[in-house]
Amino acid sequence: MSKKILEPSTRLFPIPAALVSCVGSDGVPNIITIAWTGVVCSEPPMISVSIRPKARHSYPIVKSSNEFVLNIPSASQVRTVDWCGTVSGSRVRKFDEAGLTPAVASVVRAPLIAECPVNIECEVRHRLALGTHDCFIGEVVAVHADDAVLDADGRISVGAVEPLAFCDGDYWSIGSRVGVYGFSRGKLTD
Amino acid sequence: MSKKILEPSTRLFPIPAALVSCVGSDGVPNIITIAWTGVVCSEPPMISVSIRPKARHSYPIVKSSNEFVLNIPSASQVRTVDWCGTVSGSRVRKFDEAGLTPAVASVVRAPLIAECPVNIECEVRHRLALGTHDCFIGEVVAVHADDAVLDADGRISVGAVEPLAFCDGDYWSIGSRVGVYGFSRGKLTD
Repeated sequence: MSKKILEPSTRLFPIPAALVSCVGSDGVPNIITIAWTGVVCSEPPMISVSIRPKARHSYPIVKSSNEFVLNIPSASQVRTVDWCGTVSGSRVRKFDEAGLTPAVASVVRAPLIAECPVNIECEVRHRLALGTHDCFIGEVVAVHADDAVLDADGRISVGAVEPLAFCDGDYWSIGSRVGVYGFSRGKLTD
Repeated sequence: MSKKILEPSTRLFPIPAALVSCVGSDGVPNIITIAWTGVVCSEPPMISVSIRPKARHSYPIVKSSNEFVLNIPSASQVRTVDWCGTVSGSRVRKFDEAGLTPAVASVVRAPLIAECPVNIECEVRHRLALGTHDCFIGEVVAVHADDAVLDADGRISVGAVEPLAFCDGDYWSIGSRVGVYGFSRGKLTD
């Protein structure tokens, strides 16, 4: 197979297209769309979220409050996800404009986005200034899921969530389940 | 919408199911399957990869060599991806056993996996000990893509790659493109 060399850039995909919610000391909640996020540790469970220090309304809020909620939207919410990533909370109240509902979280002050099927509350444990972005590493302190996306065993049904992936600048839906962890060595079902 | 509270855990999805390749000072290359990876900075382009220090053959290799290659597999390679995540390089030579070809990289000593359509060379800039996992933050120093997955403009075609997502323990294929960045504000095409 012949290969070409491309410019060094962030070509990793699929990555999540998530909505991060936070709240400032003035009590006004904000939302920022984030694809620069991933899992970084199993125990304690930790998630990274990278935000530009420059011209991002959420940056000083997350930096000073040391907490955020990572909300997983459905593919049906793609227009809202895109919109929240292209306007600034310094000019609009995104919850109001997007018709989203801030819901009280369990541990953090930042609100959940009620309309997102999965909500992950995080407390910031580390912050790294890397260049254009600061990487906030948050410990997961609570997880919420809509009843409608939980199966009979109380597990999150990925098919019911219909999550959104970000792939090299575009939003993609998820296809079908093609394997479970361990299936290559004989584990064939859940 | 009624919600249930679940145990705090790493419920972020979709995340990548990637193959990380590395090479030890003995010259023997290894592969480890990694879902705990994500983009953490745009400029310089940086990617995180988290590996358990305990009982992971690749951990001391990445730690001492300070480099790795993140290879994006296709969904058709899911059995290989799963297998590489369930056996240890301390017992088997994964390139040989899996029928994969180590290819010479541009900048790092670690080999590309020739059969993966996209290969991202990284040099480690930071390492954080977080708990069960250490998070390596690598700067992207070169990207390779198969001719077969590049479109006429030299851009990676996500549909041609058919990448694999990891969603809460299962492997999923990608569905269809549902939007481009900015489409909610009038950008309708590439």
